Amino acid sequence: MCRLNALYMIGRAGSGHIGSSFSSLDIVSWLLLEEMTGDDVYFSSKGHDAPGYYAALIGAGTLDFELTHKLRQIDGLPGHPDIGTPGMVTNTGSLGMGVSKAKGMAIANRLKNRPGRIFVMTGDGELQEGQFWESLVSAANFGLQEITVIIDHNKLQSDTFVKNVSDLGDLEAKLRAFGWCVARCDGNDIAAFAATLTAIQDDPRPKVIVADTVKGKGVSFMEHTSLDSDVAMYRFHSGAPDASNYRAAAQEIMDRLQANLSGAGITALEFETLERPASAAPSEKAQRLVAAYSKALIAQAEKHPNLVALDADLVLDTGLIPFREQFPDRFVECGIAEQDMVSTAGGMALNGLLPIVHSFACFLSTRPNEQIYNNATEKTKIIYVGSLAGVVPGGPGHSHQSVRDISALAAMPGMTLVEPSCDAEVGLLLDWCVNEAPGSSYIRLISLPWEIPYSLPADYRPTNGRGLTLAEGKDVAIIAYGPVLLSNAIAASKVLAEKHGISAKVINLPWLNHVDAEWLQSTVSACKAVVCLDNHYVIGGQGDAIARALAEAGSGIPVKHIGITEVPPSGTNVQVLGAVGLDASAIAETVASVFG
Amino acid sequence: MCRLNALYMIGRAGSGHIGSSFSSLDIVSWLLLEEMTGDDVYFSSKGHDAPGYYAALIGAGTLDFELTHKLRQIDGLPGHPDIGTPGMVTNTGSLGMGVSKAKGMAIANRLKNRPGRIFVMTGDGELQEGQFWESLVSAANFGLQEITVIIDHNKLQSDTFVKNVSDLGDLEAKLRAFGWCVARCDGNDIAAFAATLTAIQDDPRPKVIVADTVKGKGVSFMEHTSLDSDVAMYRFHSGAPDASNYRAAAQEIMDRLQANLSGAGITALEFETLERPASAAPSEKAQRLVAAYSKALIAQAEKHPNLVALDADLVLDTGLIPFREQFPDRFVECGIAEQDMVSTAGGMALNGLLPIVHSFACFLSTRPNEQIYNNATEKTKIIYVGSLAGVVPGGPGHSHQSVRDISALAAMPGMTLVEPSCDAEVGLLLDWCVNEAPGSSYIRLISLPWEIPYSLPADYRPTNGRGLTLAEGKDVAIIAYGPVLLSNAIAASKVLAEKHGISAKVINLPWLNHVDAEWLQSTVSACKAVVCLDNHYVIGGQGDAIARALAEAGSGIPVKHIGITEVPPSGTNVQVLGAVGLDASAIAETVASVFG
Repeated sequence: MCRLNALYMIGRAGSGHIGSSFSSLDIVSWLLLEEMTGDDVYFSSKGHDAPGYYAALIGAGTLDFELTHKLRQIDGLPGHPDIGTPGMVTNTGSLGMGVSKAKGMAIANRLKNRPGRIFVMTGDGELQEGQFWESLVSAANFGLQEITVIIDHNKLQSDTFVKNVSDLGDLEAKLRAFGWCVARCDGNDIAAFAATLTAIQDDPRPKVIVADTVKGKGVSFMEHTSLDSDVAMYRFHSGAPDASNYRAAAQEIMDRLQANLSGAGITALEFETLERPASAAPSEKAQRLVAAYSKALIAQAEKHPNLVALDADLVLDTGLIPFREQFPDRFVECGIAEQDMVSTAGGMALNGLLPIVHSFACFLSTRPNEQIYNNATEKTKIIYVGSLAGVVPGGPGHSHQSVRDISALAAMPGMTLVEPSCDAEVGLLLDWCVNEAPGSSYIRLISLPWEIPYSLPADYRPTNGRGLTLAEGKDVAIIAYGPVLLSNAIAASKVLAEKHGISAKVINLPWLNHVDAEWLQSTVSACKAVVCLDNHYVIGGQGDAIARALAEAGSGIPVKHIGITEVPPSGTNVQVLGAVGLDASAIAETVASVFG
Repeated sequence: MCRLNALYMIGRAGSGHIGSSFSSLDIVSWLLLEEMTGDDVYFSSKGHDAPGYYAALIGAGTLDFELTHKLRQIDGLPGHPDIGTPGMVTNTGSLGMGVSKAKGMAIANRLKNRPGRIFVMTGDGELQEGQFWESLVSAANFGLQEITVIIDHNKLQSDTFVKNVSDLGDLEAKLRAFGWCVARCDGNDIAAFAATLTAIQDDPRPKVIVADTVKGKGVSFMEHTSLDSDVAMYRFHSGAPDASNYRAAAQEIMDRLQANLSGAGITALEFETLERPASAAPSEKAQRLVAAYSKALIAQAEKHPNLVALDADLVLDTGLIPFREQFPDRFVECGIAEQDMVSTAGGMALNGLLPIVHSFACFLSTRPNEQIYNNATEKTKIIYVGSLAGVVPGGPGHSHQSVRDISALAAMPGMTLVEPSCDAEVGLLLDWCVNEAPGSSYIRLISLPWEIPYSLPADYRPTNGRGLTLAEGKDVAIIAYGPVLLSNAIAASKVLAEKHGISAKVINLPWLNHVDAEWLQSTVSACKAVVCLDNHYVIGGQGDAIARALAEAGSGIPVKHIGITEVPPSGTNVQVLGAVGLDASAIAETVASVFG
């Protein structure tokens, strides 16, 4: 039943992680319903199996059933765990932190003389993160036997088989060498799992169970064991299944449920049919910056034989599949190991390559932050490309909303940060980073397909620190970057004109950490005010570079910063942009209220 | 001879790492002089054994002998490796990156069809960093047999014995489980090391040699084996020996050298005696903020039983020894595992403790940057304390000069960043962070003893976002924080008055990421200009918060930012402050030239 509810939740939300919700769900259900007492806690370190856990929490009565309709809604259940949800004890979604968190909880319990076991679920791809191994050491040295880690060893990570991405080798030997009590069982066999827990319960060491599971368990065509072992891409890691897969999966689960209930002499379940909510499928006119990047990267790679691309298990989402196909020798898959990837790129650059390093912006800018700085001190040239930048998509929640990457990278000496505003600017800016930038750079990419109400002049070429006026206006200059901000700024300028009689100029400034002061002065001087939009926390965003330039010039023109000021919510894109004040109407209201 | 030169270099510089220079020096010499060909490279991942390696490079003729007099001088040899020095192939000093760097070099060599082995020295304490384990995986999967890692297993890390800080357990079993070819030998026995290298040379896997060494090898009273195994602190990890230890050590090495030469029938060496340079010992009036912090922490801990302190192998440098003695149960030693430490603190805070997390500012703000954000999204209360903040001490070089921590942390939602200006303000700000701050905070501590030419009013209490005028003036308002900046600002204000006829107000603003706009406006409005000093990169420093507040008010008062703009050099404190334009005369010159 949990599987059916998890499937429904993901289908309705339009996104979510079915494969790993299903692989871990037998264990999660057992723990919640049979094993844990009031003192015990459970959490998932990987976090993207949240829909399965929510379904179990709903089954256990901790969460209200109505929430099944509200996965990834702003007033519902976040895409990844957040402690605002009953039953969630810690925020997860960025990988490798779970055992460390559990240790902190255990030490606190001991200091406060509180009992309680701590069960932590991890992924297997997650074990590629160095923090996992870092965290094992003191757990063993401190003898934290109250911690039980369960590795949901479903053999697949984001893109494909773990062994093809970054083989774990002899996992049990590794874990034993780190001083943990290690057991192994079939993680989709509840009896076997329960027996394993019992067998190790008195061991004085922290415990880890390698649970062999099937990704997508419970729906025949979603089970990874139905795939050939050389399959390039497992289709049910993330995202919602299409309508026909959805119906087939639901039917298979419902049939099995009815058969099981009937076998147990229990009345058959009744199922309700709901209208599928109107799809928010992107318009045909939407531009896809990641796809544009794929093409632009290949064009540069054809010209530069020393260009290599590095990936951290996001080959699909970062647009690297065409590159990998065309230049297999120049593609390096690093696994979910961002620190290692960045320092590897550093070594490559020292030896004459031009490395281009890829991951989601939230991870790339922060997990290997010290490693990026170390590279920067060597003054080599490396290009970092962070996709999934900004506050939308809003579904995954704060672990994936990259709204702190500009601040985390802006002070890197010699590094230029850019964000393209449309397909055409992707290629122009990559070209600038490869061929003109004196040092390293960071390209911030919006991953959402986005309909863009402006276009760049045919002869437009990016000039460091200088922007481009997309819409003329005389009262207020709105400066922004990227398709999400700029399209909302254009729309806001129309609201301002029609509703408030304010004439707003909209400027695309793709340079995030450097502003040409002379250009800025000449562009805004005729206006009465400047508005800086940031798809980022206000602190450390592009607005700070603008304010610095204006302050140095003593311009006296009043500036309003509009951006994120607190942890953004998880929700639909429309909900989240509205909540953080970055949709067109919120922008217009703020501008009118400050400068009206 | 290398040992003697390394000892001399460290003695003359007044700081450096003798213990680990000596433990690794037999291996380093052998590699450089006997093993490596022109295609091979060597580097040390730990990097603080640089003086020993410099001595070997001087012996090999790669570096000029005159550089022995210039360790940690701006025109000499940096405290940690920098590729600006011949013989240095990568920048190190922040731990755990070496194997990743080597992999990048190896992959680049293969792509370019270049031969060459890569030898990487690591520490043993360094193995506590997760990146080390993260980096082993793909080296094994890619079969990078050209990489040989040598673990300088001298059994001691920064503070004391590795086994007491964070026991490595069965190190060989761990390394084998990660798929590497593992060998072990006496690392101070050149013949044994050479034989080990030969024995494993044809193994198709990447290779690691666990080299059992003696920390301080070659000077009897510096050898760790002369200590009891329960000694709390090894005295020759960092810093220069005092005069009497220096003379005794030099004499012991010289005597052995002469005996060896004599035994080999070689003419005895002649030694030159140089005058010891005037000591730059801190004045008796110098304030010690870390010591003040130690006391303030204990005062808070006595009031708050839920307060716990976490350390990452810097118990001496972060001032935690008194706390550990008084509250052993509330002290958690995490080893060199900053990511783990921060997430452990997160778990503690969730379970009702008030964790105070300690490390050097350079490491604490960046290595666990994503982990700090994860904690911030949970809205618990955690205090992070970064010592060794700022551009001085200048000796250790860029890996340790924390001039990017404000930018790296300023956008953390709910987090307040503060830097105390003197002993008295340390306690006041810690008190604010513990008792008044609504959320988490970061205390940025200058570690250098510093003579401070101002004092705070007896009734001064910190108010969030508001500063304190230390010296009155009417033309220019200089806003700064911390003892290094403020003492130079006070001195600069005197130069400005005497030499340029400019009257400068000096303001202590201990709040680094939030400025009270009303206070700011009223404090600077009578001045013709504002100068923001940052012991930090200009981008993302306190100056950005000030510029943002002034721009929002449309003040029109011109602002000049003075701070760091490129990777700072390694050198004496005087040299480095001058080079980055933050000593009194440079500040005065800049202010006069901009606003004179």
